[in-house]
Amino acid sequence: MALIVQKYGGSSVADAESIKRVAKRIVDTRRAGHDVVVAVSAMGDTTDELLDLASQVAPIPAPRELDMLLSSGERISMALLAMSIHSMGFEARSFTGSQAGMITDATHGAARIVDVTPVRLREALDDGAIVIVAGFQGFNRDTRDITTLGRGGSDTTAVALAAALNADVCEIYSDVDGIYTADPRVVPKARKLEVVDAEEMLELAANGAKVLYIRAVEYARRHGVLIHARSTFSSGEGTWVLGPGQTRPSGAGEEMEEPIVAGVATDLSQAKITIIGVPDVPGKAAEIFKIVAKSGANVDMIVQNVSAASTGRTDISFTLPKTDATMALKALAGDQAEIGFENLVHDDQIGKLSVVGAGMRTHSGVSATLFEALSVSGINIEMISTSEIRISVVVRGDDLAEAARVVHTAYGLDGDVDAVVHAGTGR
Amino acid sequence: MALIVQKYGGSSVADAESIKRVAKRIVDTRRAGHDVVVAVSAMGDTTDELLDLASQVAPIPAPRELDMLLSSGERISMALLAMSIHSMGFEARSFTGSQAGMITDATHGAARIVDVTPVRLREALDDGAIVIVAGFQGFNRDTRDITTLGRGGSDTTAVALAAALNADVCEIYSDVDGIYTADPRVVPKARKLEVVDAEEMLELAANGAKVLYIRAVEYARRHGVLIHARSTFSSGEGTWVLGPGQTRPSGAGEEMEEPIVAGVATDLSQAKITIIGVPDVPGKAAEIFKIVAKSGANVDMIVQNVSAASTGRTDISFTLPKTDATMALKALAGDQAEIGFENLVHDDQIGKLSVVGAGMRTHSGVSATLFEALSVSGINIEMISTSEIRISVVVRGDDLAEAARVVHTAYGLDGDVDAVVHAGTGR
Repeated sequence: MALIVQKYGGSSVADAESIKRVAKRIVDTRRAGHDVVVAVSAMGDTTDELLDLASQVAPIPAPRELDMLLSSGERISMALLAMSIHSMGFEARSFTGSQAGMITDATHGAARIVDVTPVRLREALDDGAIVIVAGFQGFNRDTRDITTLGRGGSDTTAVALAAALNADVCEIYSDVDGIYTADPRVVPKARKLEVVDAEEMLELAANGAKVLYIRAVEYARRHGVLIHARSTFSSGEGTWVLGPGQTRPSGAGEEMEEPIVAGVATDLSQAKITIIGVPDVPGKAAEIFKIVAKSGANVDMIVQNVSAASTGRTDISFTLPKTDATMALKALAGDQAEIGFENLVHDDQIGKLSVVGAGMRTHSGVSATLFEALSVSGINIEMISTSEIRISVVVRGDDLAEAARVVHTAYGLDGDVDAVVHAGTGR
Repeated sequence: MALIVQKYGGSSVADAESIKRVAKRIVDTRRAGHDVVVAVSAMGDTTDELLDLASQVAPIPAPRELDMLLSSGERISMALLAMSIHSMGFEARSFTGSQAGMITDATHGAARIVDVTPVRLREALDDGAIVIVAGFQGFNRDTRDITTLGRGGSDTTAVALAAALNADVCEIYSDVDGIYTADPRVVPKARKLEVVDAEEMLELAANGAKVLYIRAVEYARRHGVLIHARSTFSSGEGTWVLGPGQTRPSGAGEEMEEPIVAGVATDLSQAKITIIGVPDVPGKAAEIFKIVAKSGANVDMIVQNVSAASTGRTDISFTLPKTDATMALKALAGDQAEIGFENLVHDDQIGKLSVVGAGMRTHSGVSATLFEALSVSGINIEMISTSEIRISVVVRGDDLAEAARVVHTAYGLDGDVDAVVHAGTGR
């Protein structure tokens, strides 16, 4: 008998039929003899609808009240899920974030978990009940107010519960059946990974892979939680995300050397800003990126051209989320005289391709394969950045899908058959 | 400066526009220098929609989970209301039933208030904030679970808060502008009452008047809370519900002797069951009504015919809510042999007319006026029951509106002009 934490996202509980299907799945796990704790998101588009209502009554909703509002979404889904399980003859109890002991700081809308005290959950498990917990929400002890965890909050709830309850596994359910070597909608020959290294998963998630939220993977790695990413719509195994020293329960095949490249991530959500004619003097880059940071923009890649000796000036390009571009441009334009640059160019037609693999640490020539594959296909590389286990390049957005396919093939990642692309709304 | 508790029902906060209108009204009260505590219901049809979802996932939803589900409705409306007030530049804080200290017993779906400990509300008021409380919901200390108060729960929340905070007045807002001498949709010449005695209000509410819930009026009378029933859509005075020793703030006209009859209530929600050929022996009625009570049906009026000496048998008729009729009939039919009656007749085409007035205690001839008025109009009386300050009769349902009009006229209650019938969904 194991203790299993399961997380179901909004699309898995979008309507009454979906809720009953999820309830059946939970009951099956209980029938197999396991203790089950479930973290659940709000139904389908509930959160967006509530946000829309909020914007109708208040241009800038008060953060405390917005959290109170949004946290009602999970109360609805968790109560419905608990009563559905109940009607199948199993004891189920739902708990809000505060009832579940999900203690956070007081940052409304993006609260950090500071402690998990699942006293009531343990009592319910001891009583033989299935436990349903509202994802995405917590409670601050000082203000006694309800908080929400922000994007990917329900994944984080599930992992935090798994850590606090010392669960055997944290199953993250969605409408895809695991982690793929690439997005199957972009690369039809993408293969599902049986296992992926937690560090690789972090790089993939940070660079465009959408199945797991980086914050949850990070929390899992830090607390030694074993994640199993699975599909709500099938009973097959998904992908195990393995931290240091972890193996998947079946254990098969774990002795093999890991592949050099785990997967290829694509990201169309970034824009590029180029600052032209920056005086090539020490401290200029620091000055520029302090201004950008102060504007609230999140810079990703940075490239500085070789300075033209004749002018003493250089160009600096950086990428950032498209949604952050306006504020960064405003901040830079406002300080043009002080920085002394000549011009600003904004480009939101870029695509970012990342190749991730822990094997890069010990294998050379990995980047050469990437550059060669793109070159043969006539795809121009505009920027390059690397980490210990990742190489990213910026190409034209229109070229991104083609780039992903040729690179996927070049690293020998292609499967024998095309991947099935699942219907659904993503997460 | 006064402390004012206001209650807004679901139709008053049905959409974003309505919420903004209510927010403005609350802010106006605050601007006038008063402390304001608001109890708010779920938006429009939210509760019905949630009930519908529940019935889709579970034939008989688990009561604990149903309360968890339904209580989310008020969280949505109260958070939206608080952020709307906030965006008008006023500090507002919303509180769930448990945060507001609304302590109840553990009866899910129909919890009784056992204590109100509004510590956080007092803190918020001391900080100068407007306080918004979720109506209809509470919290049980032993189970630490969320409860709901059942029908009319938000009215009761408002009155209980007013009592616990020692408020100067509890304003109950709806889409009608007060208590009328009769339902204006039935009796166009109905007049709005400036004041009504709490005891009369209880009888009117118990006999079909829909503006206030009997439970809230009872709570108010027991705890000395002054109720002011008003319209969300106008700023005029509504009707003051006065308990013993209470006067309305303006004080005008309170010295006059109270009218003999306060109003006429009509009720089409009842059915009549007649048990034919009951053995006329002692203890039979007790036996019958024990069976009916055990079925869960709520008996209202009872009439036993004079026994026919020749047969030693009699007929017994009683009224009950139409929704309770099936279970009462089943219970009686199941015990037919034991009781020894001959036949059961079910009639759901009846109407109940009640005349209510505290003056009946000291005035004779009140019932004669009623019987005379109905007789002149050729309306047949099928059953009669009386209390100290009320006379009720059962007539054909089709005759009820006509009966109400002639009785209203006979008691001199008619206004000079027809009442304006407000659009809206009732409560």
